[in-house]
Amino acid sequence: MRIALAQQNYVIGDFEGNREKIISGIREARNQHADIVVFSELCVCGYAPRDFLEFNDFIEKSYESINKIAAEADGIAVIVGAPSRNENPKGKDLYNSAFFLENKKIKKVIHKTLLPTYDIFDEVRYFESNTTFETVEFKEKKIALVICEDLWNTVQYSLYVTTPMDELKKQNPDFIINISASPFDYRQATERISMLQEITSSYNLAIFYCNTIGAQTELIFDGGSLVMSPNGKVFDEMPYFSEKINFYDSDEVQKNALQSNEQAKEKIKLIHDGLIQGIADYFKKLKFTKAILGLSGGIDSAVVLCLATEALGKENVFAVLLPSEFSSEHSVSDSIGLCKNLGVEYDEISIENVFNEYLKSLTKQFAGTSFNIAEENLQARIRAGMLMAISNKKGYILLNTSNKSETAVGYGTLYGDMCGGLSVIGDVYKTDVYHLANFINQRKNIIPKNIILKEPSAELHANQKDSDSLPEYAILDKILFQYIECRKGPREIFDMGFEKNLVEQILKMVNTNEYKRYQTPPILRVSPKAFGSGRRLPIVGKYLS
Amino acid sequence: MRIALAQQNYVIGDFEGNREKIISGIREARNQHADIVVFSELCVCGYAPRDFLEFNDFIEKSYESINKIAAEADGIAVIVGAPSRNENPKGKDLYNSAFFLENKKIKKVIHKTLLPTYDIFDEVRYFESNTTFETVEFKEKKIALVICEDLWNTVQYSLYVTTPMDELKKQNPDFIINISASPFDYRQATERISMLQEITSSYNLAIFYCNTIGAQTELIFDGGSLVMSPNGKVFDEMPYFSEKINFYDSDEVQKNALQSNEQAKEKIKLIHDGLIQGIADYFKKLKFTKAILGLSGGIDSAVVLCLATEALGKENVFAVLLPSEFSSEHSVSDSIGLCKNLGVEYDEISIENVFNEYLKSLTKQFAGTSFNIAEENLQARIRAGMLMAISNKKGYILLNTSNKSETAVGYGTLYGDMCGGLSVIGDVYKTDVYHLANFINQRKNIIPKNIILKEPSAELHANQKDSDSLPEYAILDKILFQYIECRKGPREIFDMGFEKNLVEQILKMVNTNEYKRYQTPPILRVSPKAFGSGRRLPIVGKYLS
Repeated sequence: MRIALAQQNYVIGDFEGNREKIISGIREARNQHADIVVFSELCVCGYAPRDFLEFNDFIEKSYESINKIAAEADGIAVIVGAPSRNENPKGKDLYNSAFFLENKKIKKVIHKTLLPTYDIFDEVRYFESNTTFETVEFKEKKIALVICEDLWNTVQYSLYVTTPMDELKKQNPDFIINISASPFDYRQATERISMLQEITSSYNLAIFYCNTIGAQTELIFDGGSLVMSPNGKVFDEMPYFSEKINFYDSDEVQKNALQSNEQAKEKIKLIHDGLIQGIADYFKKLKFTKAILGLSGGIDSAVVLCLATEALGKENVFAVLLPSEFSSEHSVSDSIGLCKNLGVEYDEISIENVFNEYLKSLTKQFAGTSFNIAEENLQARIRAGMLMAISNKKGYILLNTSNKSETAVGYGTLYGDMCGGLSVIGDVYKTDVYHLANFINQRKNIIPKNIILKEPSAELHANQKDSDSLPEYAILDKILFQYIECRKGPREIFDMGFEKNLVEQILKMVNTNEYKRYQTPPILRVSPKAFGSGRRLPIVGKYLS
Repeated sequence: MRIALAQQNYVIGDFEGNREKIISGIREARNQHADIVVFSELCVCGYAPRDFLEFNDFIEKSYESINKIAAEADGIAVIVGAPSRNENPKGKDLYNSAFFLENKKIKKVIHKTLLPTYDIFDEVRYFESNTTFETVEFKEKKIALVICEDLWNTVQYSLYVTTPMDELKKQNPDFIINISASPFDYRQATERISMLQEITSSYNLAIFYCNTIGAQTELIFDGGSLVMSPNGKVFDEMPYFSEKINFYDSDEVQKNALQSNEQAKEKIKLIHDGLIQGIADYFKKLKFTKAILGLSGGIDSAVVLCLATEALGKENVFAVLLPSEFSSEHSVSDSIGLCKNLGVEYDEISIENVFNEYLKSLTKQFAGTSFNIAEENLQARIRAGMLMAISNKKGYILLNTSNKSETAVGYGTLYGDMCGGLSVIGDVYKTDVYHLANFINQRKNIIPKNIILKEPSAELHANQKDSDSLPEYAILDKILFQYIECRKGPREIFDMGFEKNLVEQILKMVNTNEYKRYQTPPILRVSPKAFGSGRRLPIVGKYLS
């Protein structure tokens, strides 16, 4: 049997656009003599539709689209993902389903059993869990058709009491087809393969696993659709971050692959490519063209400028230098050097006059006080005011340049440098921002060396250095990683050998700055635990704070 | 049997403070000769602890606290709510549990079956669902002990396949005890009684229902703990928004109440009291004292000033008037009148000089363009800059004054009037803001009549009126209510008789402004569908947009 896996990029709620893309995939697969073409989870409406699912109108539009797609299932079987209605008045209104289309009709609807509800996932919010298990019969083969998480209940990942494959195995399926919308992080492709290997070894079946690609605001999908032989060898891993249809002969896959055909998995390159996809789709899907950002002379804004230029083209990025009396001379010259290396347009606007005018207007309120965080934050807010004024005037979208380390400890100004439509590196620790800079410079020396070598500084008062307020990033990032990604408590982190006071101080900074992160722009997610919808903490609370 | 219901206000993660409060409740109940004292759901750690539950350290602290509380269960039985560990390696790590404490020990742990996962609830994110059902035997009575949502599966509310009371009924319980953390909205107390009446009529049992009170950032809890006789009469409804312990004789309750002893349920008063609780707890629990806000001369900031003054005291509120060249004279005089009526301190700071200095600095970027949204937003952002400067200098917390109507359609400036630590009326439609103003003026004429009567205006350009960009609020709010609260689609709203173009325009405004709401402060929730964690929509998408 010839199976086509269609790895495509959808827009949430764009039923027409998604349908056109799916139909063109069906036609290509039919031309290439495929017996079945497989699309990804919830491809009809785009993943994740979130509370749009609560609108009856949205579900109706989805059904209309499925019927139009079914009309194309002629001489080829088609598997698409979409919500389906639960006819039982008890329980949630919907299932997360795979529609098996054949002979211009819906032949079978298979529902998802394991509904991820952790991190960025909220599926129980919308869907009822499936409780009946049946393979799909097609051309004398029995297919175990499952949806994404349905495979993720193994020895390594044991979040659920039910194991759908244990039920389906009883019907002696010939192979497994899985439709997924499995979000990217730098470690996900490795985990996915490891999990599928556990599945093949448990059930001795070939797997055809179709994932989506593209970014949906903060969530990035990497593709990397997989075909695995029953012996656990990767028969093929489709490329990351590109749309593609590949074709496979199921008999050949079942014969067991001898050699793994895998994509390279280098963490910094994956993060880099993920961020490019994230920026590009944010602009493309919202129909924006141009980005604006403030360039401080530091490494964070430099890296974001490089990424934006790669994602959008140098003609679509506009940099603004906003020096104050506290800006060092090299901040401006390094920034100009970077813009010239990239060939992007830039402007320089001093914030000094507006700053002084603010201080004049606030004479009464500031009387008798000395320069402190109020004046520091004011500068950051004036910069944001300038950038947003240009953004509003020209229709450019402001990119945020905060990194994960400073976002974690609240080392940033709300309504100042924390502004922007999209946070590009808010899920990248400072130490990895350096790695990204070096990765970018590997191909060509774009980022001036001085930007990489200088000591980090917010330059909001004379001779300020990040190290005045923060421990060195090499240590800070390690402690943050244990707390945020690994969810270790203070006692567990002390026991790893970090200093007690330092750990307590850092954890307190993270917890007391939840209020700032609440108002932060969406952050492109590249790690297993990003700030945003995947990490939900109370603002008012008293725990490690 | 003498049953005490302890309606208390907890702080999330404050194990020590919560424990002290619970222990003082136990001692009072014992002094008053109660047989059992009942506390609310997850009272040991505070509700909703959210992702703190993913920290092993947090769960350990919770168990330590339960053991200390158990030591007080001497001569009295105690029911407290806390997370408990799931010993099965499959499934989620925790249960949401009721601990029945007796003779200084944990006698029984009952787990929650129905885990709300919709709107602001995320319980499946953390908890495994209970599958075994057993009553608790105590002093020759059989108690059906259930947790909050466990009762909410009736004919009216049929979200679940399992009905815990059907299982428990088989063991012939004598009465029901329910421990809850059921968040407030203006309609919740009515729904709660209606649901409990369905329960009493189905099972013919008395109910003792203990709810928490107090605000946890945006979530407000109203208390209103209930005792209901088997005939569906409210034997007692405890007061809203205050801590209290009440005592009931279970035999008397079972005899059937003749008269309902209910609290009054007037929508605008409920909203008013809920907002006061919300402001007060935000400040108290974060140990802030003073609030600052910008006073525009319009009704929104006037109402917020009144509410803040009532919640925090007039000595703890500071108002700032920030006129520009577009401000009408009455904006300033009306604002001063209001401050004087309330006795709150105020300052006036013109934004004109800073505005002009910004325009000078932006000469190159703004060249050849005419005054538009860029200059309008700039004024709002300068105001925010002034307010945040004073906030940072003096440690006052900025209150946001945006209403729900403008938040819905994006009629506000990000990093401008959308700033603040807490949005007070972001869940109150403009038409209800007027009702709140009139409610406040009922007791005493505090808000100058002109503020209530004047036509709404942002005053960001000459002679601007809200009605230039928006339909009249009476119609706008009705359409928004159908879309947001009732989740009706465009076709359903046309069919109610609203104009098609207008509906499409408004729905599009709501959907395309999701990006602004993503960065809005936490909004005190007083309606069944507030912006914030209870309404989750994609920013990048193409649906009704």
